[in-house]
Amino acid sequence: MITETPISSDVFKQSMRLLAGGVCIVATNSDGEWHGLTMTAVCSLTTDPPSLIACVNRGAGAHGIMSATRRVSVNILTHDHMGLAELFSSPEIRGPKRFDEKKWIGMASGVPALIDALAVLDCEVIREMEVGQHSVFCCEVRNVRLQPNRKPLVHFDREFCAVQPVYQS
Amino acid sequence: MITETPISSDVFKQSMRLLAGGVCIVATNSDGEWHGLTMTAVCSLTTDPPSLIACVNRGAGAHGIMSATRRVSVNILTHDHMGLAELFSSPEIRGPKRFDEKKWIGMASGVPALIDALAVLDCEVIREMEVGQHSVFCCEVRNVRLQPNRKPLVHFDREFCAVQPVYQS
Repeated sequence: MITETPISSDVFKQSMRLLAGGVCIVATNSDGEWHGLTMTAVCSLTTDPPSLIACVNRGAGAHGIMSATRRVSVNILTHDHMGLAELFSSPEIRGPKRFDEKKWIGMASGVPALIDALAVLDCEVIREMEVGQHSVFCCEVRNVRLQPNRKPLVHFDREFCAVQPVYQS
Repeated sequence: MITETPISSDVFKQSMRLLAGGVCIVATNSDGEWHGLTMTAVCSLTTDPPSLIACVNRGAGAHGIMSATRRVSVNILTHDHMGLAELFSSPEIRGPKRFDEKKWIGMASGVPALIDALAVLDCEVIREMEVGQHSVFCCEVRNVRLQPNRKPLVHFDREFCAVQPVYQS
């Protein structure tokens, strides 16, 4: 018998850990200084306009820049990028120091692109909505860089994971 | 050399297929009739209030009911649920016929819960925002049923996938 559990902060966090998500680095550019953070709270929105959603904690260093410049890159990581995912969520290393210039280049719009990402989506923020401590950024995708033959990095239940196809039995 | 590609509908869809996502069935109850659809556009929002986001096409059969009743269940699927994921996105089988009464039960709030889901989140819609053809539902999680030792079903690049942990080399 599985009982229904009224929600607490801990139970909510445990529940959300069970929602697997592709790991991304969302990044931005403030007068030539790059900032970015690791996120899984990114999802597709609609095709017209081509858009996605990213939910960003307003306490994150990059939040104010994203909100002010309204331009962000969403870098979808491959299964080789676990170290990068940890670097961009590190409490010790913050701001532009997270960016190794051998791994990143500037896009035409100025936002940073991870050179060997699965995909980089250069986005303009078209709407921002505050809910609790987070901002929901609705982002219109303007340009992309795709390397679709790579495999994604997924986060599930506090572990970084690779994926493999399942076939119907 | 990876060039930047200005976005088209096809390029956008290809990009979004590269964002891996846990597969969910979002379901609702209209006067005892259950409706639901398969989705990957679900992500965590914030912890206070405990909330998540689901982006639903306004053309989907369940959309109007979700919008009117403001109560939905988010059922996170396991890697055994590929057939269910296909059933709940089938153009031939729609409405309450998708629900096998041996697999689903009603929660206290009336929304359907998949009995062997990884997690079922019973949610109240607290905000709805329209962008293009989709509605962004901000949902506060009220109750949960968790079976956290199961493994998730993930969708990536048009394939259903299982996950396995990667370890730092």
